Amino acid sequence: MVNQLALGVDLGGTNVRAAVVDRESGVVTATVKGVHTDKSPEAVVASIARATDEATKLAGVVGRLSCGVAVAGQLRGDVVSVAPNLGWREVPFGLLLAAKLGRPVAVVNDLKAAAWGEFRVGAAREETDTFTCFVGSGIGGATIASGRLVLGARGVAGEIGHVKVKFEGGRLCGCGEYGCIEAYAGGVNLAAWMAESGLEGGAAELEVQAHAGNVEALRLWDFASSSLALVVANQVTALNPGMVVLGGGVLMRCPKLYERIVKTIETRALAASRVGLKIAFAALGDDSGVVGAAMLGSELQSRG
Amino acid sequence: MVNQLALGVDLGGTNVRAAVVDRESGVVTATVKGVHTDKSPEAVVASIARATDEATKLAGVVGRLSCGVAVAGQLRGDVVSVAPNLGWREVPFGLLLAAKLGRPVAVVNDLKAAAWGEFRVGAAREETDTFTCFVGSGIGGATIASGRLVLGARGVAGEIGHVKVKFEGGRLCGCGEYGCIEAYAGGVNLAAWMAESGLEGGAAELEVQAHAGNVEALRLWDFASSSLALVVANQVTALNPGMVVLGGGVLMRCPKLYERIVKTIETRALAASRVGLKIAFAALGDDSGVVGAAMLGSELQSRG
Repeated sequence: MVNQLALGVDLGGTNVRAAVVDRESGVVTATVKGVHTDKSPEAVVASIARATDEATKLAGVVGRLSCGVAVAGQLRGDVVSVAPNLGWREVPFGLLLAAKLGRPVAVVNDLKAAAWGEFRVGAAREETDTFTCFVGSGIGGATIASGRLVLGARGVAGEIGHVKVKFEGGRLCGCGEYGCIEAYAGGVNLAAWMAESGLEGGAAELEVQAHAGNVEALRLWDFASSSLALVVANQVTALNPGMVVLGGGVLMRCPKLYERIVKTIETRALAASRVGLKIAFAALGDDSGVVGAAMLGSELQSRG
Repeated sequence: MVNQLALGVDLGGTNVRAAVVDRESGVVTATVKGVHTDKSPEAVVASIARATDEATKLAGVVGRLSCGVAVAGQLRGDVVSVAPNLGWREVPFGLLLAAKLGRPVAVVNDLKAAAWGEFRVGAAREETDTFTCFVGSGIGGATIASGRLVLGARGVAGEIGHVKVKFEGGRLCGCGEYGCIEAYAGGVNLAAWMAESGLEGGAAELEVQAHAGNVEALRLWDFASSSLALVVANQVTALNPGMVVLGGGVLMRCPKLYERIVKTIETRALAASRVGLKIAFAALGDDSGVVGAAMLGSELQSRG
């Protein structure tokens, strides 16, 4: 009998979360958090092994579950090419995980996992075509077309945070390139930009200050929000999704930013591409990563 | 026995081209052109019927061939919602064609047909993931992900010509919206913009004048070319294709515009998304529409 449960892991820069998830309903039956102060691949893999073991025990599972691990980074197969939060480059993560856990593990991009979770059991479960954009410390995205995740030729489709919003130059992004939307509207970069401009706090504080009449705050907020909103609206024009799923910590804390994206889609995406379009906030909250990773992991592994 | 041949039709604003095409190799065995001064749906359908009849006879085909018709316009199923070149809105084209031709006919978007032709037997035949952009009188695109055409929730994915390149306002586009890249770099709109700016000719003349030191020509060329190039580079970042296929009359006549797009992809698309990326000119020339329409038509019809 195929187990109805699956393991999902959401790997962040400083912590890891493992969950036992029902593969059909997406219900999380057990969840365990771990912290890794040592970011070396070996330490992180050990931390994942502990968390998945504990979650499995907590759920009372006997036997082996399929496992999917979501990573905030660019992947090439199950190799992590770049994961800025972890400081990783070219880490053979899938091999390390399989060796430590004693079974094959699916390594997936965090935004693709979140988009898949929302598509299977979250905000977009009635849809076949979605565009997902999360704005947190960074900005990422994923596209689902006719019920299939768009992976791209090398698996890095969806890197919407690195769409350029300046014809030339622009602010330096964490990816090493200039003028990316993440360099302006991603939480980490936006806070740095605010500090350089003599403003305190992060995205949420910026939004409040901008709307309270602080001219400098308004300048930054206006550029970051109009750029991000146009990037998303242009993806609606290019992809014609049935639903745009928006999520992430920055969007959660910045209602006016969310509102501006919605309004820009409604006024600047091609009319034909937004007929019947729905726009929704991600419904799974902190669970989108673990749920999507568990589902994607079990589906990838059952396909062989 | 399934016939190895299929009919493809490329419908333009003033003429129609019908071809008998080998469904596997893409070889065109017979081709017939027709002109329709009357753009009413009935007259156009009659013109298509004549051209397909003649092409079938010319090829010496006995029996019925599957048929695909490519239209420059936005489709909803086999209804043409908007086709600016023909002045059509909400035309039940599939029904009219089926009634006149006495068989089911697949109606497909012209750029999706061209992208599919290039993918099956043209420049991209070794690829699984492509992004195609044609710049002619208008600008259109299409995406193929893991060997499947991205259609979008309502079938209008790929309308890259209507991606906005101005935060607000901008030049009026044929679609009725403002600030679309097509409003600047599409052949028809670019010529109108040149006339307003006291410049003669079209895209090809603009490129020559701009590079011969005409300041006003350079202003127009620089904005149109840098905007278009960034739109394409940003789609590479968002979609991670293995190949970008470029085509269309304007790009064919404007080598420096083509060069700028290539250079901008190489410098402004996210590094990870352009690892191993190929960029090629469409290989089927004037045949991409009929070949793609024939192949897409036969594939859609054999699926039922």
